[in-house]
Amino acid sequence: MQEAVHFEDLEIGQVLGSQRKTMTEAEIIEFAWQYDPQPFHISVPDAEESHFGGVISSGFQTLAVSFRLAWQANGLQATNLGAGTIEQLHWLKPVRPGDTLRVEMEVLEKRESRSKPDRGFVRFKYTTYNQDDEAVMTMECPQIVGRKEAARG
Amino acid sequence: MQEAVHFEDLEIGQVLGSQRKTMTEAEIIEFAWQYDPQPFHISVPDAEESHFGGVISSGFQTLAVSFRLAWQANGLQATNLGAGTIEQLHWLKPVRPGDTLRVEMEVLEKRESRSKPDRGFVRFKYTTYNQDDEAVMTMECPQIVGRKEAARG
Repeated sequence: MQEAVHFEDLEIGQVLGSQRKTMTEAEIIEFAWQYDPQPFHISVPDAEESHFGGVISSGFQTLAVSFRLAWQANGLQATNLGAGTIEQLHWLKPVRPGDTLRVEMEVLEKRESRSKPDRGFVRFKYTTYNQDDEAVMTMECPQIVGRKEAARG
Repeated sequence: MQEAVHFEDLEIGQVLGSQRKTMTEAEIIEFAWQYDPQPFHISVPDAEESHFGGVISSGFQTLAVSFRLAWQANGLQATNLGAGTIEQLHWLKPVRPGDTLRVEMEVLEKRESRSKPDRGFVRFKYTTYNQDDEAVMTMECPQIVGRKEAARG
């Protein structure tokens, strides 16, 4: 396990990186068949005839992959207490089979909880990039992050 | 196939319903294992010890199921041209195995595209309800919807 990252460890302006993940045609079609069965996600010939020119990942799959990449890379596994909101999610470019994604999380704001001394609120901006360093998705997400034992007094 | 619903068919204030879908423990754990492997999504005993008191669906799964329910129920299959943005997504209550979800889509705003006469922009508010008619998720999503052939002049 990585060392846990707590609320106190995060600084405004800090940017956290992630591993990279290659998206396969198989998982793009499998996800979409179950969750987002639009022709340009599930059918190669229909996607080729669409304005996308080929199969693209469901935006919901891009979102979920982005969250997992960010979550598992940054020592937040033990301290993430959840998120109730996504603000301003934008899908900027199509994600295609063979594209390799990585995520940067920037700490935009943080404040301690007034009522619960074991946690704080952190607003992250997520940006998902492809292998050409083009941004394919951005979102802002206020999350609840645990504080160190010592701070709980 | 249902009859296609075009931009002109949608009225501000109109509310579109959906089928209902029961969430199973198997699919909740399977989705989370691949896309959101937090303990309260993938492990029954860890979830029971968490503040959720049992396994809950990944919010990304609730989102994707909600979109599919809405999309497949409302004649938008042929006319939906995509969405680039989600605004103000809120997860309001946990979704647990055995919960049955349905979606209401309200038409908040609509306007014709100035540059492309074959389409218009529609802002939908999605609300996902459980079997007790409790709202579990809301979001606003501006979508692009095709116009009727006749309107393309």
